[in-house]
Amino acid sequence: MNNMKIGVLLSGCGVYDGAEIHEAVMALLAIEEIGAEAVCISIDRDQHHVVDHTSGVEMNETRNMLKESARIARGKIKDIKEVDPADIDALVIPGGFGSAKNFTTWAFNGPDGEILPEVKLMLINLINIGKPIAALCVSPVVLAKALEGSDYHPLLTIGTDQEPSEYDIAGFAGGLEQTGMKTEMKSVREITVDKENRIVTAPCYMMDASILDIRKNVRSAIEALRDLV
Amino acid sequence: MNNMKIGVLLSGCGVYDGAEIHEAVMALLAIEEIGAEAVCISIDRDQHHVVDHTSGVEMNETRNMLKESARIARGKIKDIKEVDPADIDALVIPGGFGSAKNFTTWAFNGPDGEILPEVKLMLINLINIGKPIAALCVSPVVLAKALEGSDYHPLLTIGTDQEPSEYDIAGFAGGLEQTGMKTEMKSVREITVDKENRIVTAPCYMMDASILDIRKNVRSAIEALRDLV
Repeated sequence: MNNMKIGVLLSGCGVYDGAEIHEAVMALLAIEEIGAEAVCISIDRDQHHVVDHTSGVEMNETRNMLKESARIARGKIKDIKEVDPADIDALVIPGGFGSAKNFTTWAFNGPDGEILPEVKLMLINLINIGKPIAALCVSPVVLAKALEGSDYHPLLTIGTDQEPSEYDIAGFAGGLEQTGMKTEMKSVREITVDKENRIVTAPCYMMDASILDIRKNVRSAIEALRDLV
Repeated sequence: MNNMKIGVLLSGCGVYDGAEIHEAVMALLAIEEIGAEAVCISIDRDQHHVVDHTSGVEMNETRNMLKESARIARGKIKDIKEVDPADIDALVIPGGFGSAKNFTTWAFNGPDGEILPEVKLMLINLINIGKPIAALCVSPVVLAKALEGSDYHPLLTIGTDQEPSEYDIAGFAGGLEQTGMKTEMKSVREITVDKENRIVTAPCYMMDASILDIRKNVRSAIEALRDLV
């Protein structure tokens, strides 16, 4: 299929306070490799906070998601307000703490957290018209908060507790279940495809992984996303 | 060769005021693909300025190269002061305006610009002990300012004026010649390898290029770098 357009929803620029850069760049690469066109999208709102990535310490600064995400997009990015679900054929949400701090407040309140209304609206609209979504790394929490209370109960993965991870994978999975999602454990060499709900999830950096693992995991997710269009 | 360590010298995080993110991430990927280990390195100094990547307009902010580069490195980065030339087998310098605004002042003063002394020292030391360097995109200007006035007159490319580019390729090449370098025109599908001086250069985003072009151009440069070790 030519001219397939895949939205790439970015929450900033950097793993600890925005979108995970390697996952985002690998998504842009894979989208071009399958002959599709990437449409980078972000939100014109401030990030929850700014983190010094050398120390993990919060900095006394304010940064805007759209402006920071534009670094990954080399300036070519759209405000989510300008994007109609009809404009894209599918959407991918890279990981990074931005998904759990900016798009949702899962990092602070777990499954009881909030989600930005414009993010929820875009995801619900896409699902309602049968357009597929891929959520990488921690981004299944964004899907969960968007679909919570709806008739959609997709099968998602956020990694596996059977292989090394610095995160509480079982805890995240339990939180996803609490919002009405189904979950399964998958390694960074696997993805989960829910064909009925047209949702792809891939563990990526939720697991201890190398950039080559990320490259392969994201490529698999984007290929699966294409096959659901 | 196992355990080959390749330094990745980063000037920030974002094409307009720091390191070009796609080039940097593709370098990290290619380094792992050839079985080597990446050692991310930056400078604990402020960037020249901060640019809003949605508009190109300067922002009233101050950002530190080391802290911003750490976003690309996922926190795993060394201050150049802690890196001895003996610690790495080769070095790659991704592009982005950081090479012409932070490492050097080429963006403002052309070939008459300055270079940070710690950057010059590292490059000269590596060349003196026969360790190869790859300079991507605009980063040949960093090499030129480091080697100016020395006995080294390597052959470099900074792109070609025979294919589309938003930059004045001939002007950049003329500037490089003025500092004592030799230059040749190459497309984004080619690289220049100076075997005698152990220097690789690749046009990358100096040319109008897609992320897939960048992927291939960087991969070629990293393979050539490995072959010079």
